[in-house]
Amino acid sequence: IHVLGFDADHATLDKLAGEQAISPAFSLEELVQALPQPRVLWTMLPAGPISQATVDKLASLLSQDDLLIDGANARYQDSQARAASLQSKGIQFIDVGVSGGIWGLQNGYCLMIGGSPSSVERASPYFQALAPSAEQGWLHCGPVGAGHYTKMIHNGIEYGMMQALAEGFALLQNKKDLQLPVADIAELWQHGSVVRSWLLELTADALADPENLDEIAPFVSDSGEGRWTVDAAVEQGVPAPVLSMALMMRFATQGKNDYAAKLLAAMRQGFGGHAVVKN
Amino acid sequence: IHVLGFDADHATLDKLAGEQAISPAFSLEELVQALPQPRVLWTMLPAGPISQATVDKLASLLSQDDLLIDGANARYQDSQARAASLQSKGIQFIDVGVSGGIWGLQNGYCLMIGGSPSSVERASPYFQALAPSAEQGWLHCGPVGAGHYTKMIHNGIEYGMMQALAEGFALLQNKKDLQLPVADIAELWQHGSVVRSWLLELTADALADPENLDEIAPFVSDSGEGRWTVDAAVEQGVPAPVLSMALMMRFATQGKNDYAAKLLAAMRQGFGGHAVVKN
Repeated sequence: IHVLGFDADHATLDKLAGEQAISPAFSLEELVQALPQPRVLWTMLPAGPISQATVDKLASLLSQDDLLIDGANARYQDSQARAASLQSKGIQFIDVGVSGGIWGLQNGYCLMIGGSPSSVERASPYFQALAPSAEQGWLHCGPVGAGHYTKMIHNGIEYGMMQALAEGFALLQNKKDLQLPVADIAELWQHGSVVRSWLLELTADALADPENLDEIAPFVSDSGEGRWTVDAAVEQGVPAPVLSMALMMRFATQGKNDYAAKLLAAMRQGFGGHAVVKN
Repeated sequence: IHVLGFDADHATLDKLAGEQAISPAFSLEELVQALPQPRVLWTMLPAGPISQATVDKLASLLSQDDLLIDGANARYQDSQARAASLQSKGIQFIDVGVSGGIWGLQNGYCLMIGGSPSSVERASPYFQALAPSAEQGWLHCGPVGAGHYTKMIHNGIEYGMMQALAEGFALLQNKKDLQLPVADIAELWQHGSVVRSWLLELTADALADPENLDEIAPFVSDSGEGRWTVDAAVEQGVPAPVLSMALMMRFATQGKNDYAAKLLAAMRQGFGGHAVVKN
């Protein structure tokens, strides 16, 4: 398969071209012109305005029966709206949730796919090439939106599992009188325990060098999927307290609990005369 | 190795003897008398009074240099107190957290071990026989108490990971307009996704037959370890909101939130005239 690539950062394009991974196109116009019809395009862009602007631009450049696949982490409602808008021009749309992170290149990517049966059938060679194997690791989950919805829930679960592991290891590390070997315990649990998992494997890797955490600040970013999962729980009225709490704890690490904490300290001082810790 | 076994239920003993797994002893006295000195004994009993009564009984029967291993889920503070009491009679004690559930027989058990270096060294052939392999899946975690403390945290993490998975699948199943294939998604995520884990594998098994959940009531028991983990978080003043919430949600499934829910409905009726749902 001959792949053409475009990125707004031309240095990235030059690098990929140098590695002979892609043939570079230096604008979307050039890319669309160079692709044989009917075209298949795959976008991987940050959710929000950048994705929308690119879809809008491509909508003006593409033709009937072209197929646009969005493999990024988009809000599933945005993907549904984009599919509807493209369909009015005869352009097909597939939303794919892609998991596996930077390890996907070695292990294959887990692909959650939303779209019409015919468009998914058409793109299946690409899914088979990207998944861990041709038969496993990719699934047509349902109509447009089903891919990004499933990926959103996957990431929501990921937030909860990560927080559960992190809390547990904090309780191991903090039990000073037992001096527990946290790195060895993480490795141990990979063998026959109930919590064995890929996230535990990454935890074991992170703990293997005890100085690893020294240079990492206790600040955890969040990138959208966790928030959307909680939005979905609220919209559906289905309780997801652990997924919500995992998200809220990330906000707390971002300093967003500081105002509330100052206020609590001030209230304790107010009613009980309790001393406050000064900045 | 020749193993003698005792159980308060003689039918269990007869069954194991029939399978030639053990030679039965029909009382603790008979068991202790039949074992060659210095003895090694392994108990697996429910936490609390039954375990304590058995340790007390064995303390009166055992001799200097005998070794008692507790492989059950005991409170680590109880194990520390038992070790101290047995030590005054020259009897050694090891606490072992055992994970792997009913699958351990095939896969090997993950063993978390607390005790003195010499006693753990002495018992290592047993650990090597029970673990997934002689080199992996068993770890001397620290002094007496370290085994059961580590197992307690393991189970606390397990509660959190289970709740995260359950909440996520509830949000998949409840998204009626997408009609997502929850069983296929569970299987899909085993291949290359970030949430792949043994608990996800069990989830996939549970969902494989869609009628599986029909006959299961929405009631989740808890067996102590989750509560002890939250006790430890409170004692240490270390936040574990997801592990706590997972435990609280189990209490809710046990009907223990019903009084609070009735009261909330009554309050809403009181201030807003909102209708209540009648029993």
